[in-house]
Amino acid sequence: MKTGLIGFGKTGKAVASVLLQSQETKLQWVVRRSHSLEHRSVPEFLGIESKEPGLIYSKDEYTAADLIRRMPVDVIIDFSSEDGLEYYGQAAADEGIAVVSAISAYHQDKIELLQRLSEKTRVLWSPNITIGINFLIIAAKILKKIAPYTDIEVIEEHFKAKPEISGTAKKIAQALTLEEENIKVVRAGGIIGVHEILFGFPYQTVRLRHESISREAFGNGVLFAARHLLDKPNGLYTMEDLLTPYFQLDATLPERRLDTA
Amino acid sequence: MKTGLIGFGKTGKAVASVLLQSQETKLQWVVRRSHSLEHRSVPEFLGIESKEPGLIYSKDEYTAADLIRRMPVDVIIDFSSEDGLEYYGQAAADEGIAVVSAISAYHQDKIELLQRLSEKTRVLWSPNITIGINFLIIAAKILKKIAPYTDIEVIEEHFKAKPEISGTAKKIAQALTLEEENIKVVRAGGIIGVHEILFGFPYQTVRLRHESISREAFGNGVLFAARHLLDKPNGLYTMEDLLTPYFQLDATLPERRLDTA
Amino acid sequence: MKTGLIGFGKTGKAVASVLLQSQETKLQWVVRRSHSLEHRSVPEFLGIESKEPGLIYSKDEYTAADLIRRMPVDVIIDFSSEDGLEYYGQAAADEGIAVVSAISAYHQDKIELLQRLSEKTRVLWSPNITIGINFLIIAAKILKKIAPYTDIEVIEEHFKAKPEISGTAKKIAQALTLEEENIKVVRAGGIIGVHEILFGFPYQTVRLRHESISREAFGNGVLFAARHLLDKPNGLYTMEDLLTPYFQLDATLPERRLDTA
Amino acid sequence: MKTGLIGFGKTGKAVASVLLQSQETKLQWVVRRSHSLEHRSVPEFLGIESKEPGLIYSKDEYTAADLIRRMPVDVIIDFSSEDGLEYYGQAAADEGIAVVSAISAYHQDKIELLQRLSEKTRVLWSPNITIGINFLIIAAKILKKIAPYTDIEVIEEHFKAKPEISGTAKKIAQALTLEEENIKVVRAGGIIGVHEILFGFPYQTVRLRHESISREAFGNGVLFAARHLLDKPNGLYTMEDLLTPYFQLDATLPERRLDTA
Repeated sequence: MKTGLIGFGKTGKAVASVLLQSQETKLQWVVRRSHSLEHRSVPEFLGIESKEPGLIYSKDEYTAADLIRRMPVDVIIDFSSEDGLEYYGQAAADEGIAVVSAISAYHQDKIELLQRLSEKTRVLWSPNITIGINFLIIAAKILKKIAPYTDIEVIEEHFKAKPEISGTAKKIAQALTLEEENIKVVRAGGIIGVHEILFGFPYQTVRLRHESISREAFGNGVLFAARHLLDKPNGLYTMEDLLTPYFQLDATLPERRLDTA
Repeated sequence: MKTGLIGFGKTGKAVASVLLQSQETKLQWVVRRSHSLEHRSVPEFLGIESKEPGLIYSKDEYTAADLIRRMPVDVIIDFSSEDGLEYYGQAAADEGIAVVSAISAYHQDKIELLQRLSEKTRVLWSPNITIGINFLIIAAKILKKIAPYTDIEVIEEHFKAKPEISGTAKKIAQALTLEEENIKVVRAGGIIGVHEILFGFPYQTVRLRHESISREAFGNGVLFAARHLLDKPNGLYTMEDLLTPYFQLDATLPERRLDTA
Repeated sequence: MKTGLIGFGKTGKAVASVLLQSQETKLQWVVRRSHSLEHRSVPEFLGIESKEPGLIYSKDEYTAADLIRRMPVDVIIDFSSEDGLEYYGQAAADEGIAVVSAISAYHQDKIELLQRLSEKTRVLWSPNITIGINFLIIAAKILKKIAPYTDIEVIEEHFKAKPEISGTAKKIAQALTLEEENIKVVRAGGIIGVHEILFGFPYQTVRLRHESISREAFGNGVLFAARHLLDKPNGLYTMEDLLTPYFQLDATLPERRLDTA
Repeated sequence: MKTGLIGFGKTGKAVASVLLQSQETKLQWVVRRSHSLEHRSVPEFLGIESKEPGLIYSKDEYTAADLIRRMPVDVIIDFSSEDGLEYYGQAAADEGIAVVSAISAYHQDKIELLQRLSEKTRVLWSPNITIGINFLIIAAKILKKIAPYTDIEVIEEHFKAKPEISGTAKKIAQALTLEEENIKVVRAGGIIGVHEILFGFPYQTVRLRHESISREAFGNGVLFAARHLLDKPNGLYTMEDLLTPYFQLDATLPERRLDTA
């Protein structure tokens, strides 16, 4: 699976590092807005041994169509900003290249663009592309169906400088139809990111807790997304769509299970 | 839904208290091995206001068949011991009364008896009948399928006097095909019961954590089990079987979801 | 150590149960406002085997002075309400009987009364008399002195019905000169009580966490308080005053410690 | 405060980065065994803007005495290996330069060398030099004195590849005279480092928990150690010795405190 990366900020670098170290993907190129680091090799820059090309280009040097012609890819991964889509979107759709976008928020016109592109290729958009968080959201929705009488609270902890309420906590609250007052925001020191969904039963408590260790977690989410997207028909997907099939359980007859227990 | 309860030890009492306070069930009687408390009223004994009959009988006074004839029930709930089944099993099967058994362990002959009874009525057997623990086990099995490369550890904490490794922790380990050495056993003070399933990803951690507040949690599990069992065909069920349908997710088209997001 | 207890609500009963089970104390009597349970034996009522007298009186039957003359005590323990003090205060001071009051809040006139009484006997007043919480507050104040640049947040979790912000969380915030907005209030299900003081350092986090299992925790705090109070001169004390001496560390010469390490 | 650093492995680099970003210290030089990076500037290498000299030398280029003469320092910080001491120890003692060593373990002959050096200068040795862990150990020892009847368990969590039982967990166990079986070792994914000391009371639980976010935490510990060491007389110190004075509490009269409460 050949990949191209749009964006090379802190998270872009962390994702590039995971891609380079994975056997599953070959990082062909990185495109960024800035001219700094132009034509540098990503493996060399990050100090990772790898024979993957991974050269850095400014978006002014080639159009996406030209770049893809010179160095074809199967998936384009976007950790840039809302505008990144303008650069590569049409070219990806024309060539049937899958798109994995981790942009936090798109305006309505960009969402419509994503939808048009998704008629011609597979597009995944997920603002928080970690497996852990997306798993937690689905699991929490299920537990709420099972026990609708529980009280649900969300506790999110981040470093002091992070402005109020993480996007992920808001997404959790939305998925569970909670009010914003059910999100408890802790800001202290250098905490990278903790999200806990607490279910209060009358006589027991269930906590679904996710702790981020580093930005590289997004890289593993990208690998999961890219791998699963390639099998799918054209369309616009979320991480939840890719995780959902794992929640379909066997309906083995109970008797058989007890026999072998 | 009329219920009869077998067993009136500490957990039996806690379950009776939840049953009495629920609008869904009417506690008709309690049968126990001991003659103490004979003919006492459960509501009066537990100090709960309730008009439900709930009289306490020794099992020597009536056979189960006689008792059921005098005071019919829809569900028999068993928190006694392995031998309780001998008392009421055949009578329940003959009358098509559902059975909810929370006995920790049965020998093979008793499991076979459960299976024979389940040809004539609905039987649920679950050693840990809380919703929280059973939800956690299913969710953990799904997460393991999604991310088979994670390291899974189980941490269980209980009061000092509890002998090594809880049955629930063993069941979790079995469900996830872990070794016993992956269970970390903490014994201290009066901790009622904590089970945490920890998934270590390279750059993130997911913790699924269950904390027991009191034995009454079993009562809520019983209510859930009884309510769901009554709709089911004859057969032998586990809590997992009753929870599984909640894990079947809608396959709404992704485009529609984004439109309304 | 002979004790008398004022108040026999839920917490009073839990404290009585701990006192009866302790070898250190003999529960002489309980005084309550209500006439119900009059002249019942506490051990019998609570189902605890004990030869301690522990009879229940209404405060209308005897004055405190009369009761003390008939059944002398070393310590009076107050889990009633603000008005309890009127009943026994002067009599305790006159006889030099130690007082342990766990009343949540006193008005200024009652605080002045406590101070006057404390000229003639040893008086301890602590709204949250658990060892754990009081230890945590002192430890947190020390850590704040060591690392004044850390961000401190308090997370408190209680059952759904508890009105906003626990008194203990407020006391923690006051002791650490935090704002009320630094207290994160979680309300869900049947959580008995969790208080966590989180210190955010730039590259590490320290969490001081207290979890209540049951009201009996107050009983152990009372035992600690009563035991330590009897050695002290007359005066008005808090739990912190009794814990402080444990924080005075040996100043062994460092060389000696390394030799024996 | 001018500092020199011995060792430039992963932790050495993290510590250098904290030193460069602190206003309190000026990093004069780094000495390492390897010749790679020789004469590179630490700020430039780490991408940190700073006017501090911070040049990297191999230990073969200058003796410590020569280096100190050319670029004097107040404190030498050692994150190398047991042998680092041979390089700089005598020179530091001769010049009265304070030493902060974070070497995990020294053999007996090296400990004796530390003691001899400490007759002529201030020497601090701490295998885990974070403020958080050392605070936790002292606080835990105090809580054990207050409540000797509690059950204490230590839970330590680290990344999968870390060999059994962290040195810090062993030190905690030793400080609290626990057995090794009281340490529960969790190994999963990329967990950087968690240590929890759990106190089980009969009806409450206290958890003292430390979570490492990154190696830079050692840098803050070094700053604390260096700052406090400069005021001290010659001698051999541990982090505990420097933290101890913070545990000496005011003995304000209780009455005064209540007045102002």
